[in-house]
Amino acid sequence: MYRTHNCGQLSESDIDKKVILSGWVQKTRDKGFVVWVDLRDRYGITQLVFDEDRTSSELLARARELGREFVVQIEGKVIERASRNPNIPTGNIEVLVEELTVLNPSKTPPFTIENETDGGGDLRMRYRYLDIRRNPVKNKLIFRSKVTMEVRKYLSDQEFIEVETPYLIKSTPEGARDFVVPSRMNEGQFYALPQSPQTFKQLLMVGGLDKYFQIVKCFRDEDLRADRQPEFTQIDCEMAFVEQEDVLDAFEGLTRHLLKEINGIEVEKFPRMTYDEAMGRYGSDKPDIRFGMEFGELNAVAQHKNFNVFNTAELVVGIAVPGAASYSRKEIDALVDWVKRPQVGAKGMVYVKCNEDGSYKSSVDKFYDQNDLAKWAEATGAKNGDLILVLSGSAGETRTQLSALRMEMARRLELRKPDEFAPLWVTDFPLLELDEETGRYHAMHHPFTSPKPGQLELLETDPGAVRANAYDLVLNGNEIGGGSIRIHDREVQSTMLRHLGFTPEEARAQFGFLMDAFEYGAPPHGGIAFGLDRLVAILGGQETIRDFIAFPKNNNGRDVMIDAPAPIDKEQLEELGLKLEVKKV
Amino acid sequence: MYRTHNCGQLSESDIDKKVILSGWVQKTRDKGFVVWVDLRDRYGITQLVFDEDRTSSELLARARELGREFVVQIEGKVIERASRNPNIPTGNIEVLVEELTVLNPSKTPPFTIENETDGGGDLRMRYRYLDIRRNPVKNKLIFRSKVTMEVRKYLSDQEFIEVETPYLIKSTPEGARDFVVPSRMNEGQFYALPQSPQTFKQLLMVGGLDKYFQIVKCFRDEDLRADRQPEFTQIDCEMAFVEQEDVLDAFEGLTRHLLKEINGIEVEKFPRMTYDEAMGRYGSDKPDIRFGMEFGELNAVAQHKNFNVFNTAELVVGIAVPGAASYSRKEIDALVDWVKRPQVGAKGMVYVKCNEDGSYKSSVDKFYDQNDLAKWAEATGAKNGDLILVLSGSAGETRTQLSALRMEMARRLELRKPDEFAPLWVTDFPLLELDEETGRYHAMHHPFTSPKPGQLELLETDPGAVRANAYDLVLNGNEIGGGSIRIHDREVQSTMLRHLGFTPEEARAQFGFLMDAFEYGAPPHGGIAFGLDRLVAILGGQETIRDFIAFPKNNNGRDVMIDAPAPIDKEQLEELGLKLEVKKV
Repeated sequence: MYRTHNCGQLSESDIDKKVILSGWVQKTRDKGFVVWVDLRDRYGITQLVFDEDRTSSELLARARELGREFVVQIEGKVIERASRNPNIPTGNIEVLVEELTVLNPSKTPPFTIENETDGGGDLRMRYRYLDIRRNPVKNKLIFRSKVTMEVRKYLSDQEFIEVETPYLIKSTPEGARDFVVPSRMNEGQFYALPQSPQTFKQLLMVGGLDKYFQIVKCFRDEDLRADRQPEFTQIDCEMAFVEQEDVLDAFEGLTRHLLKEINGIEVEKFPRMTYDEAMGRYGSDKPDIRFGMEFGELNAVAQHKNFNVFNTAELVVGIAVPGAASYSRKEIDALVDWVKRPQVGAKGMVYVKCNEDGSYKSSVDKFYDQNDLAKWAEATGAKNGDLILVLSGSAGETRTQLSALRMEMARRLELRKPDEFAPLWVTDFPLLELDEETGRYHAMHHPFTSPKPGQLELLETDPGAVRANAYDLVLNGNEIGGGSIRIHDREVQSTMLRHLGFTPEEARAQFGFLMDAFEYGAPPHGGIAFGLDRLVAILGGQETIRDFIAFPKNNNGRDVMIDAPAPIDKEQLEELGLKLEVKKV
Repeated sequence: MYRTHNCGQLSESDIDKKVILSGWVQKTRDKGFVVWVDLRDRYGITQLVFDEDRTSSELLARARELGREFVVQIEGKVIERASRNPNIPTGNIEVLVEELTVLNPSKTPPFTIENETDGGGDLRMRYRYLDIRRNPVKNKLIFRSKVTMEVRKYLSDQEFIEVETPYLIKSTPEGARDFVVPSRMNEGQFYALPQSPQTFKQLLMVGGLDKYFQIVKCFRDEDLRADRQPEFTQIDCEMAFVEQEDVLDAFEGLTRHLLKEINGIEVEKFPRMTYDEAMGRYGSDKPDIRFGMEFGELNAVAQHKNFNVFNTAELVVGIAVPGAASYSRKEIDALVDWVKRPQVGAKGMVYVKCNEDGSYKSSVDKFYDQNDLAKWAEATGAKNGDLILVLSGSAGETRTQLSALRMEMARRLELRKPDEFAPLWVTDFPLLELDEETGRYHAMHHPFTSPKPGQLELLETDPGAVRANAYDLVLNGNEIGGGSIRIHDREVQSTMLRHLGFTPEEARAQFGFLMDAFEYGAPPHGGIAFGLDRLVAILGGQETIRDFIAFPKNNNGRDVMIDAPAPIDKEQLEELGLKLEVKKV
């Protein structure tokens, strides 16, 4: 037996007990006559003591030899600690060691196994198994496990059934790029790894399972933007005989349960906002509503003066940054530079300082008098002491730019509090979005999303205006879930695919099984999928997902620890009927 | 709102309530003046009634038009049923329909949606979404969901952490064939899909997570024997600071929990048996111990007579089949034919009838007298009325053949009761097994399994004799789990890989990351993996796993419903730097 207790367990009530502990040497302190060793495991740290009075010199000598991260087993007696440490649960005791066994020595680790480590990101990824020993990483993995368990408990209690759908499925060119898997038994043919179990969960509804969920890996072969992974995890859900309201209710319940059980926070009914409203008020379909700075449209009050930049703009829009009227000229110039960066792309920025005395000072005083500016303040809700920041240009771009500026100002003003949670439903998304490059319409959510009742005909005349039974759950400015009421009628699905540019043959080849299924009694159905990695990160008060994933890949899709992907044997390729044909660069 | 209640919910206490129900038309019965419709959903069946007295003729006419599997929504009043049906929970009521909406019509399904269907296996797989509507399939999927939830609850309560390990990993030629995934971003390189998360779970132990589990898909590109799937699910577990005893305790606890919660059966401490004992007593490393018929070795009592077949055999071994002395000559001949089938491969079979009067009648009376045969009866434990069946030949083959015969006799005598559960630990497996074809030793479990203490040296002199810290959990004659205490020492792992035929370079390339990890304080660790598909099937009292999988593949690895795998676009291949090179046949 390697241990009678773990390293986070012993307390005063165990004093005088004989115990066996195993763990890692966190550190040793040698005071000459006494050696203390901090023994660490997942559960905590227990202080071991070896001293001249009570420990044999041979044992004391061996204790002195212990290096960082050695794995040791000890036997000893729990004693009261002279100088107590109130910061850890075991801080009132220590263990006087009687026997010491080194189970495995350790080379000096390439970085310190401490909450604050000296290891850089790359080094920590290469030795991920050492990084996981650090509390910040370990605790995030434990946190993730706790969240998924709560998700499962809640949904099971609501009679959802977890069903595993297949990983070896069929490639569909719609959407992102698939990872494919050559089939040896069906030479020249390929499986694809699922980008989501979408069609399977719809078939489960056709199959009468009524309420389905699954926590499942999904795969997308995309060029990786920061904080994206080629494999990611979804909480995938679907319900039959539901309207949008039923789905929102069910998953508002789940999210409220998580906020309560995981974060100890009770949230009232989640606010809702249409896509159009969210774009108008925040310039974003995933607004962070933990803070204000709502958009004030200024066309009516800022145009038709002599300022041509505004007169020629489709949209003039501003936000009031609370308490920022005191910004110096230098600080404001820096903001102008920030919005002009290529990542944001604004051409310039106009500001108005709303002074404490009620007067205004702006960068466009030449064109606007105090009365004009008072109207800007009214439109943006600016109060004395606030700073109004105004962008202009084409409506879409300007909203996106001002949304980025709004988030940046919130960051600088520390308004994005990690322990505050503001969920929001965004509804009535457009069904289609225009790809500017190809001039083709794409499904904004996916091709199985139903248009709003009565809007099917609009597809023919004004496709961009069709609204969908689609909704996103937004938490603190992040989309954590998205879903829709699906099409369950073969004709509607055919029409939809035709509008997305599928020939009848392509539609048949790729989605024939689903459209066939719709002819055998498909019930109305809809669902949602949550991005688990992101959800867990946000509940954990973090911005990045990487440390909530045990073994993440880097931005080139590589696992640098195991060094994958890697070349494979010629024989393996031959068995698969494949030949490498590396492209010339 | 599509429904106020589901179809399994209404009872006498709901009489006079107005309700809305949605579901599928199971069947309609038209008696002229009255039409009954059975409305079905996942939860049950509710009888709808339309009659001339209380229903408009228009509505009655529409009810008559309803076809099987139409999806309908009704509004109506719950009333007491005239002729009650005690067999279903809703049998005391029916719903007098006031409004009827067809939500989706249905073509006539290709097979009946009944517990006993007229559809063949292939047809049902093609229309799997219809097959899932049938109770036997639906209930198995619900059962599986319940089992996995219980697994998670139990292990979480025991402080196991569920960690998701990656699906895009690295190919290793050891073991079965990998499915590979070409990397577009790393051209000419491939990921592999995991055959198990073995190395990752070991790294999590090196990382200090202490107790890990995961319910996870695994992949093997094997030629598919019956009832095998290219993708399958494991309950994968690992623990640090454990000896074999700790692992057996932990997962005996899990299994006992499942038997209790799922099957309502309390099982005492599981019996244990070494591999050698299991092979000796049952000719199998996964004996079904729900019944006797243990092997009786007969070399001592059957050799050195004049029966040359036995005299030249390495092993003479028999079983006593209870109550089978009454078998006719014809029945026994059929058994002889059965053991001679190529799937079993015995050259012949000797029998002894133990008559009720205490006399013996055998097929070898020419060579053995009553005293001789009495010794056989003693060795096999045969009682009056039993039939002794004896095989002989080389020890390994003969044991395997007699084990097959023992299982077949148990099947015929209905001794394999699906509601009886007899778990068994089999321990002390050989570390290596000889591949007769290549003359090379393979790891019987996997290359990370540790030899028994003190047996490492034996690897040099007698590799086949080395026993491993490896164990299987057997339930009713099926291996449902297998595991081992792992190697956690770099040198031992190197030695092991060398004995398995890896050059140092190969070992480095494939498992370097693991051996490096062993140098940074790897704790002793071990674990187990359960085959979830099989476990669920056995707990469900079934022999085949297919219906416990929502969307299984056929024996050619094809999903016939979605028609995968399938060819992919030339552009996709080009992007991956691949070219098809189909082999000539």
